[in-house]
Amino acid sequence: MTLYPMKRVTVVCEAYARAPVTELVTSVGAHGWTVFAVEGSGHQGSRPGDIPEFANIQFEVIVPAAVAETLLARLQAELFPNFAMVAYESDIRVLRRDKF
Amino acid sequence: MTLYPMKRVTVVCEAYARAPVTELVTSVGAHGWTVFAVEGSGHQGSRPGDIPEFANIQFEVIVPAAVAETLLARLQAELFPNFAMVAYESDIRVLRRDKF
Amino acid sequence: MTLYPMKRVTVVCEAYARAPVTELVTSVGAHGWTVFAVEGSGHQGSRPGDIPEFANIQFEVIVPAAVAETLLARLQAELFPNFAMVAYESDIRVLRRDKF
Repeated sequence: MTLYPMKRVTVVCEAYARAPVTELVTSVGAHGWTVFAVEGSGHQGSRPGDIPEFANIQFEVIVPAAVAETLLARLQAELFPNFAMVAYESDIRVLRRDKF
Repeated sequence: MTLYPMKRVTVVCEAYARAPVTELVTSVGAHGWTVFAVEGSGHQGSRPGDIPEFANIQFEVIVPAAVAETLLARLQAELFPNFAMVAYESDIRVLRRDKF
Repeated sequence: MTLYPMKRVTVVCEAYARAPVTELVTSVGAHGWTVFAVEGSGHQGSRPGDIPEFANIQFEVIVPAAVAETLLARLQAELFPNFAMVAYESDIRVLRRDKF
């Protein structure tokens, strides 16, 4: 059995950001991702990117490191200015590299 | 693009522990967290902290390392004796440190 | 407070694989796991293991490293040939080792 090092990028955002996030995830070449509804709370500050305490969605995207970097950079540049959103990455090891 | 090392603390617990966990998460200063319903199974032993095989909730809390340590220590000291609960941390790298 | 290094094995699969995955998770000796519904997208190729863009479920299983290895190897050998499925592991640190 071989495990391949990959990144998992998690994006928590307001539900109405679903379409642009999905479009971006697809456009960077991500093949495997899940999305599910969560309740959430973010910083209650004055910036437009803050997340209120109600329905949000959470994306989990499995990608190679280089794609994770592109995805995070584009999230920050293209979607953070307009949507309440949090994004982070972590290290994972996957079975079957060819799926991602 | 800069990513900041943080911790993600995951807490799986019975639904009726929602209020005390939320209160503790807030009191340690965590700003960003999500919660969602899960089905779960824990060790079927005789200890009061064991998790039965039905509705639970899962918290995911993004915090700096020092806050993660405080949160886990207080979960263990204050809530583990009275609620069915599992807690663990993992390493993540987030965009926009100022949100947490 | 002591944290114990463990693995979290995540399995994303079609809902109809729920019973065999649960059976396998149990048979390798895992005590703590959650499962929840997700929407997902996998590689749209021609292999039988690909995940279509609709209802899936996501398992998260907390196990020692040796059990994670067994679980992943058996998922690959026994379930990957017959079900649309993605599996990966990551490092976590848990409170209360005796629960897993």
